[in-house]
Amino acid sequence: MAGFVAVHTGAGNCIDETKYQRVIKEACMRATEILRNGGSAIDACEAAIMRLENCGHTNAGFGSNLCLDGSVQCDAAIMNGTTLNFGACTNVSRVKNPIQLARRICDGQSDQQPLERIPPMVLAASGAEQYAEQMGCAMVDPTVLISSKAKFHFNHYKSKYDLVVGNSKANQDSDGEPVPEPGNEVELTGAALDTVGAVCVDDAGNTAAGCSSGGILLKVPGRVGQAATYGAGCWATDTDELAIATCTTGNGEYLMKTLLAREICNGAFSSDCAVTSLHRTFKQKFLDSPLLPQQQDLYAGALTLLYYPKQSCGEVMWSHTTQSFCVGYMATTQKVPKFVHSPLPTYSVPGRSCVVNGHNFHLRI
Amino acid sequence: MAGFVAVHTGAGNCIDETKYQRVIKEACMRATEILRNGGSAIDACEAAIMRLENCGHTNAGFGSNLCLDGSVQCDAAIMNGTTLNFGACTNVSRVKNPIQLARRICDGQSDQQPLERIPPMVLAASGAEQYAEQMGCAMVDPTVLISSKAKFHFNHYKSKYDLVVGNSKANQDSDGEPVPEPGNEVELTGAALDTVGAVCVDDAGNTAAGCSSGGILLKVPGRVGQAATYGAGCWATDTDELAIATCTTGNGEYLMKTLLAREICNGAFSSDCAVTSLHRTFKQKFLDSPLLPQQQDLYAGALTLLYYPKQSCGEVMWSHTTQSFCVGYMATTQKVPKFVHSPLPTYSVPGRSCVVNGHNFHLRI
Repeated sequence: MAGFVAVHTGAGNCIDETKYQRVIKEACMRATEILRNGGSAIDACEAAIMRLENCGHTNAGFGSNLCLDGSVQCDAAIMNGTTLNFGACTNVSRVKNPIQLARRICDGQSDQQPLERIPPMVLAASGAEQYAEQMGCAMVDPTVLISSKAKFHFNHYKSKYDLVVGNSKANQDSDGEPVPEPGNEVELTGAALDTVGAVCVDDAGNTAAGCSSGGILLKVPGRVGQAATYGAGCWATDTDELAIATCTTGNGEYLMKTLLAREICNGAFSSDCAVTSLHRTFKQKFLDSPLLPQQQDLYAGALTLLYYPKQSCGEVMWSHTTQSFCVGYMATTQKVPKFVHSPLPTYSVPGRSCVVNGHNFHLRI
Repeated sequence: MAGFVAVHTGAGNCIDETKYQRVIKEACMRATEILRNGGSAIDACEAAIMRLENCGHTNAGFGSNLCLDGSVQCDAAIMNGTTLNFGACTNVSRVKNPIQLARRICDGQSDQQPLERIPPMVLAASGAEQYAEQMGCAMVDPTVLISSKAKFHFNHYKSKYDLVVGNSKANQDSDGEPVPEPGNEVELTGAALDTVGAVCVDDAGNTAAGCSSGGILLKVPGRVGQAATYGAGCWATDTDELAIATCTTGNGEYLMKTLLAREICNGAFSSDCAVTSLHRTFKQKFLDSPLLPQQQDLYAGALTLLYYPKQSCGEVMWSHTTQSFCVGYMATTQKVPKFVHSPLPTYSVPGRSCVVNGHNFHLRI
């Protein structure tokens, strides 16, 4: 069976791309194996993201960024382009693979419920965790999701944060972390933005898109991020002429305010050229959006798959306003996945301008 | 100072409108008093909703519907049409007035944060409650928000639910509630949909919209409803030509899937006639939306305020697909608020067709 998958490990400033290369390729291999064996796009999408969640290198599942209180709280969402069902979870600390829970919630949207109840679309916190247990998702102790790297980053930035906000506990750090000088400021918005996402199309031409994130480092506990926000973190819509799936990454609140994933898909449906459409959406609906602060650097990335069922061909596109974006993609007909470390052109200003690039594919020759 | 406010207590099948009449009027009086004294639209909007949350008759704050596990979990959101800031909370059980927390989160969007952190836009569960405490919101024990009426409804429908789903505990009900016969089915989707909302415009022509809800009776614990969903529960946008604020009510997941509040505002901005635009949005973006199940009854209501700054006049519009909708409105120049119990015309089918009605107002004569 034919199919195509593309994954990303977050748009940001990727200094060491090698840490993502292997896991991106593994995620692509896992997804195409499922597609080859007749699995659906949403099966492949879920499996790819689970691989990325489990690796410990990304900001999703195990290894997620920690909140300001040192806890881990994950978000994830998935959308089925054919049924238009969507499922998301937020603030989960005990679900091994948040994308698995999002998938169960998404599938549940089609279930008939007693008393004409409408199945939930987004679940949060302990309620989401209870539901995950009932649905048979793998559950873990919250500490299991905390990697030593995440803990190290937390200690490093937390001590800087405490100094800047004048928290008296800053000098009492007993973790052996060198206490930074006051005024040694650091931006957190660019730190560890490695949210993950995947887009897939299967043999039947059905698409799916998903995303998973631990949120920004030192986030306020309870914060709901774009990876759990309908219209922001992922979107997928299939029609007879065109099927589109997209997943986003970047400054969460800015992606939420602009509902960027939905805008990308809506834009592509009303345009003849995917590149033009992506450029326009990033410019008009994100960088110049009246919903966003005008003086701020606006960081976003999106991985978008377009599939034309009548021609059995498609395009995978990556667009970002960040310094770099690490993506990978693979067709079921290929043996080796392609890894791309996409840089912003040197003449472009990160957070102020956007680059769009892509690659064509055929599901059947 | 001049201003105008409109509030609602939910679109549904209102059999006894008198229970809403007094509290709707009180909410209007409270909001106009604030507007007269120079308060902003968002001040008035928050105060009106607090009044509706505290009365015990609505499904918001004290008196909210209970979850399947008997707990109370509230959602609320507010949007400032001038700054386009939005704040929402979900799954909160200890915040006396969820709209007060939403307001603090909304205002926080404009705050400069250390280390270029981006302020949160939506907060959930215990993290949201911690934030509320820090922000000085009134906190209560979760049981304080449970009214005897809500507990009575919960017991009544829970025993029916247990019978339908074959829960063996159904016959062990010790609350003295008569155990219903098997097969005595009941729809929950129409039960106690009395989410509340408010829309305001102040002397400066700034608008605000807000909403608050306990969610549907017997909801899955953890469920995030439309009242906490960006684009779904409320929206407000001010321009030099036109300012619009809207708040929605109805089947939460359907309002979320269609992002109805945002669609209503976008539609109104691209139309010359508010009535036509509202009819079209309800038909094209809700009743006929490919995002929603086609065979199902689709219940929604919206209270929309349009203000034309150059003419100092506006319109308040109510639209609904439900049997009825209870709204009220008042200008600062008036002494007595107007209460409207809007029915669906007898030739219309609830959940399948929509009625739009409204009233003009002037801020200055």
